[in-house]
Amino acid sequence: MDTSDALIPRRRGRPRRDRGPYEDTRNTLVWTGVAILTEKGFSAVGLDEILRAARVPKGSFYHYFDSKDEFGAVLIDAYADYFSRILDQHFLDEAHSPLQRLDNFMEYAKAGMARFEFRRGCLVGNLGQEMGVLPERFRDQIRRVFLDWQARAARCFLAAQEAGEIRREHDCRHLAEFFFTSWEGAVLRAKLERNSAPLETFAKIFLLVLRS
Amino acid sequence: MDTSDALIPRRRGRPRRDRGPYEDTRNTLVWTGVAILTEKGFSAVGLDEILRAARVPKGSFYHYFDSKDEFGAVLIDAYADYFSRILDQHFLDEAHSPLQRLDNFMEYAKAGMARFEFRRGCLVGNLGQEMGVLPERFRDQIRRVFLDWQARAARCFLAAQEAGEIRREHDCRHLAEFFFTSWEGAVLRAKLERNSAPLETFAKIFLLVLRS
Repeated sequence: MDTSDALIPRRRGRPRRDRGPYEDTRNTLVWTGVAILTEKGFSAVGLDEILRAARVPKGSFYHYFDSKDEFGAVLIDAYADYFSRILDQHFLDEAHSPLQRLDNFMEYAKAGMARFEFRRGCLVGNLGQEMGVLPERFRDQIRRVFLDWQARAARCFLAAQEAGEIRREHDCRHLAEFFFTSWEGAVLRAKLERNSAPLETFAKIFLLVLRS
Repeated sequence: MDTSDALIPRRRGRPRRDRGPYEDTRNTLVWTGVAILTEKGFSAVGLDEILRAARVPKGSFYHYFDSKDEFGAVLIDAYADYFSRILDQHFLDEAHSPLQRLDNFMEYAKAGMARFEFRRGCLVGNLGQEMGVLPERFRDQIRRVFLDWQARAARCFLAAQEAGEIRREHDCRHLAEFFFTSWEGAVLRAKLERNSAPLETFAKIFLLVLRS
């Protein structure tokens, strides 16, 4: 569920010259952190590893963030925001039917994982799995992210239902919850298997569910 | 997916007096390790935490295991073995129809998670999620565990298909892969939410899939 975009500070509509070195260093830290956490989760990664990869000295880090925990909370928000844009890009794409949009999203996510040889998964899924050892403040934050993503998916499913692509009997909010819950499992498995087969089996059966 | 059994060295058919202190200490280490890893995963847990909980001195640990990694591999096998018995207990229970057995398994797993207030999940799911930071030797071991569990589920689904509970068109091996992939996502989510709702939504929709 990560793509190379995640490594590049977002500059859309905001030319580089408008931004001081403050925002550049902070952005570098954030997107380097996101990239590393999509692969390794939070607790197994030391700040030093992120700082080395970002080529930012420790002193600078503490200029922007009070602690690793505060940094983690910022990374969750950054990833959630980035990923909700990816969802909108697909789920709101009126060039395709609602179910085709879902399929396109899954294809896009699969290509994103393939680009990093299935080493990177979903930052929010990783941290969700680690909640047993993470600061409690992350729990509500991560739950809210899932609820937000689910609401976006549910709107797409409702549109599909109106278009006759999903049976009337289905509860689109439940389907959306089922989708993200199961999708995180498929992303986990694709990382384990180092290939796209779990995502493909998931997509095939899930689309079958919706249509049946 | 953990239950209180996981904490108790398995004595079935093997009275205590037959076993020396060797096996007791080793078993205590293994089942304490399993309990802690179902909650916290592998990389965030230090040996010291396990030894303290098991009340076993470090010297004894190294009498039984060469390293934390070797210990981890033993824990995966112990959990896999324990859990495959749980699956058989349900999937082979001829007192119920095949789909009812699946439903019973999911109910049992839900009750197991509730007993520990949804703090403990699946050891194999946790370690699968952590693969990015775990010893590579764990990868094949964890994959084989999933394949074994899936084969047991597939046999139950085939029986359901023969009994007319699952549509002929479904490929039971794919369904079994989909089931465990998605189930791990639901367990993760139940841990995050600290309640059974994700398992219930999952079970409801998955049973709908099978029947449709």
